[in-house]
Amino acid sequence: MIKLLYGRMFREHLDGVHGLERSVLHALGARFADVQSEVRRRRSAGEYGFYNLVDQGPTVRAIRTFAEGLGQAHDHVLVLGIGGSALGTKALLSALKPPAWNELDDEAREFFPRLTVLENVDPVSVAAALQRIDPRRVLVNVISKSGGTAETMAQYLVVRSWLEQALGPAAYRHLVFTTDPSRGALRELAQRDHIATLEVPPDVGGRFSVLSPVGLLPAALVGIDIDGLLGGAARALARSEADNLPQNPAALYAALHCEADLRHGAGIHVLMPYTDRLRDFADWYRQLWAESLGKRVDRQGRTVNIGPTPVAATGATDQHSQVQLFMEGPFDKVITFVAIDDFGQDVSIPRPANAALPADLDYLPGHTLGELLRAEYEATASALAQMGRMSCTLRFPDLTADTVGEGLMFLQLATGYAGVWYGVDPFDQPGVELGKRLTFAAMGRKGYDAPSGGALPPTDEA
Amino acid sequence: MIKLLYGRMFREHLDGVHGLERSVLHALGARFADVQSEVRRRRSAGEYGFYNLVDQGPTVRAIRTFAEGLGQAHDHVLVLGIGGSALGTKALLSALKPPAWNELDDEAREFFPRLTVLENVDPVSVAAALQRIDPRRVLVNVISKSGGTAETMAQYLVVRSWLEQALGPAAYRHLVFTTDPSRGALRELAQRDHIATLEVPPDVGGRFSVLSPVGLLPAALVGIDIDGLLGGAARALARSEADNLPQNPAALYAALHCEADLRHGAGIHVLMPYTDRLRDFADWYRQLWAESLGKRVDRQGRTVNIGPTPVAATGATDQHSQVQLFMEGPFDKVITFVAIDDFGQDVSIPRPANAALPADLDYLPGHTLGELLRAEYEATASALAQMGRMSCTLRFPDLTADTVGEGLMFLQLATGYAGVWYGVDPFDQPGVELGKRLTFAAMGRKGYDAPSGGALPPTDEA
Repeated sequence: MIKLLYGRMFREHLDGVHGLERSVLHALGARFADVQSEVRRRRSAGEYGFYNLVDQGPTVRAIRTFAEGLGQAHDHVLVLGIGGSALGTKALLSALKPPAWNELDDEAREFFPRLTVLENVDPVSVAAALQRIDPRRVLVNVISKSGGTAETMAQYLVVRSWLEQALGPAAYRHLVFTTDPSRGALRELAQRDHIATLEVPPDVGGRFSVLSPVGLLPAALVGIDIDGLLGGAARALARSEADNLPQNPAALYAALHCEADLRHGAGIHVLMPYTDRLRDFADWYRQLWAESLGKRVDRQGRTVNIGPTPVAATGATDQHSQVQLFMEGPFDKVITFVAIDDFGQDVSIPRPANAALPADLDYLPGHTLGELLRAEYEATASALAQMGRMSCTLRFPDLTADTVGEGLMFLQLATGYAGVWYGVDPFDQPGVELGKRLTFAAMGRKGYDAPSGGALPPTDEA
Repeated sequence: MIKLLYGRMFREHLDGVHGLERSVLHALGARFADVQSEVRRRRSAGEYGFYNLVDQGPTVRAIRTFAEGLGQAHDHVLVLGIGGSALGTKALLSALKPPAWNELDDEAREFFPRLTVLENVDPVSVAAALQRIDPRRVLVNVISKSGGTAETMAQYLVVRSWLEQALGPAAYRHLVFTTDPSRGALRELAQRDHIATLEVPPDVGGRFSVLSPVGLLPAALVGIDIDGLLGGAARALARSEADNLPQNPAALYAALHCEADLRHGAGIHVLMPYTDRLRDFADWYRQLWAESLGKRVDRQGRTVNIGPTPVAATGATDQHSQVQLFMEGPFDKVITFVAIDDFGQDVSIPRPANAALPADLDYLPGHTLGELLRAEYEATASALAQMGRMSCTLRFPDLTADTVGEGLMFLQLATGYAGVWYGVDPFDQPGVELGKRLTFAAMGRKGYDAPSGGALPPTDEA
């Protein structure tokens, strides 16, 4: 079970000057009854659809059947998707499969397929992927909830033509679409061309969809235990039924971060796992937190221009990059460490057999890399506290499908609660519409004329 | 030549409310004489050592000789380094070699070696790398300016033992150290064990060392044109000799960003290249900007707790992740786009041969992915401006060793100038010392006792 350690949010454990006063915990706890009822009310009204993902037995069976049947016939899975259709899958792959998965040979991968996620329309990336992947042995999973995402559909047209050139009419057997059950262009294409599909539940938004077929199908294809993911997620969900704030870690996480932002100016929220395997997990969190909470208007329609800025970091690596700023810069950040108790394997730091070590390296042999990494986490957390910086820790006992599923659901739950504390709708993204319209206009899509009187082009250059 | 487009920093090109007033350009220009003289004075005093990296003929010849000799005997380069010893190399590899380089076969790599950068002490990453790399065919480049970086030296002891077990005394021929010319444990080991070395100039700090042997050796080994890198860097340097601010793009970049931070509260500085190939370049910038400018004290020793927070983003991908926040959240950000005129290759979006397209996809065929990507950049820049958000653009004609070298030097120069505008020393990193001392204490290093009276361990958990 994941634990939230939050003592270092409080002034008494920092430099005595910065941080939250402990009494705030009581005040937040008193306000929590209203927050919890609002979440329950909105959940009944169908807004918090991601809560239902822990209970999708038939879907899981369908995914498993697909993965163990058609899925096994391929040695490369190519995901076409962007944002919420890509970030969760990347997070699952790097958290739960060996590093540099695609560089391993068949045996080291236990004959599970390689996995490439194309999450951009950079022509060089797309051309290179189609150059190195064998179309005869690929399964292409096109993921778009709306079925009309410009980048994904452009990729799809390119990839479909590439498949058809290599395979002719058999191309369709290499495609599976993950999209809305009834609406959108992908659904229309699937019905017309008899392409296999999986459904994104209509009440689950892209950034909350990692535990839907969006993330579960690619995960199952590479051999990740999807029941384990959902089991861990269910545990996080069960804990968030608590009405007492200190017993509800996801709600507490949201409350403390919102308090730090709105009352203490600490609106930069860093997620810093001490393991390479959660680097993509931190990028997944970045979308979740930024897109859900960064809003122009609140629930009452008042202009608020609110929202924390999430930042991803990796320990110990970023001690040599971003930590100088975290230690000494403005008091505008809260750091969330992710600490892993058991890495699953460890590496001893050996003493050279035939030669003495320079004296200033003599402390290393006899320890393990895991010990060093844990010592660095503890040292950094302690040093940040001494410098008056708020932090907390998500402590994972290990890194398995169970705990990763729990961690994903924990942060989704926290985001749902944070929406209430910030007073915004965490499930929309109205701010990206203007950019989409301007792109459509530039691409000549019917009904999207270039707006007159927009911003002037930049004239200043150096 | 890279151009800086900065019109969208000014209110008149935004929403008329937010952004800088144009008159500020004149005011900054007037103060620039002092800034430029301070940089020149400090440069003469040896502080700005990275300026000299454009002129290192003998070093470049030594690197080329090494790369074309011993370097060619290996098909995998393993870099052990962290922070400034890793980020520049990763940026060069992904900017200038084909995507997924390590997944390509020998022919697709034109027989240049694969390259792995180990930048952490995560035992799972290290064990996996040593599992998949053949010690008989690897060249290990250990990079630490001080020669005593804990993470890198721990990696070194592990890798050295792995090499010795496979190769016996021949292990040493698979090692090359990049370190200080005279000081530190790595230098001591090299001299004793007759290991090949390259020098990091003593006046060049880690985060300014990508154009020193730190970055140039790995780059040369994988076939990157290092003369091209330095040629582009020299052009950036020549332009920064201008004493007129609007003609000195690196200085102007620094001045505008500092003004936006200190006078307008826009202290989150986003670098958002519209190409996957500069994703690691943005991570490199993140260290440069954060570690150089995030400081507790100013040059006079006064406590200021200052410094912008750099954020890395990738276009178009992050339009589906962070851009909602950039558009609608607090007015606390400046976005720097990187736009590429010529991607070097492009991919047509084909119209399916045998079937009609759903009407809402009909606008895509006939365009290319490159056109779509450029349209998305322009739409996003324009939409941000309409929402009152400051932005500027670094416009690259293409992505070559020449322009990447120019871009790296541009941002280093900007950082050097920003140090003056912020009034801090951009070349130190005192804030990470405490964490290092606490790590040493935990690891039992002599002379580093665990400090008494430090922060209490966290007791609050959920």
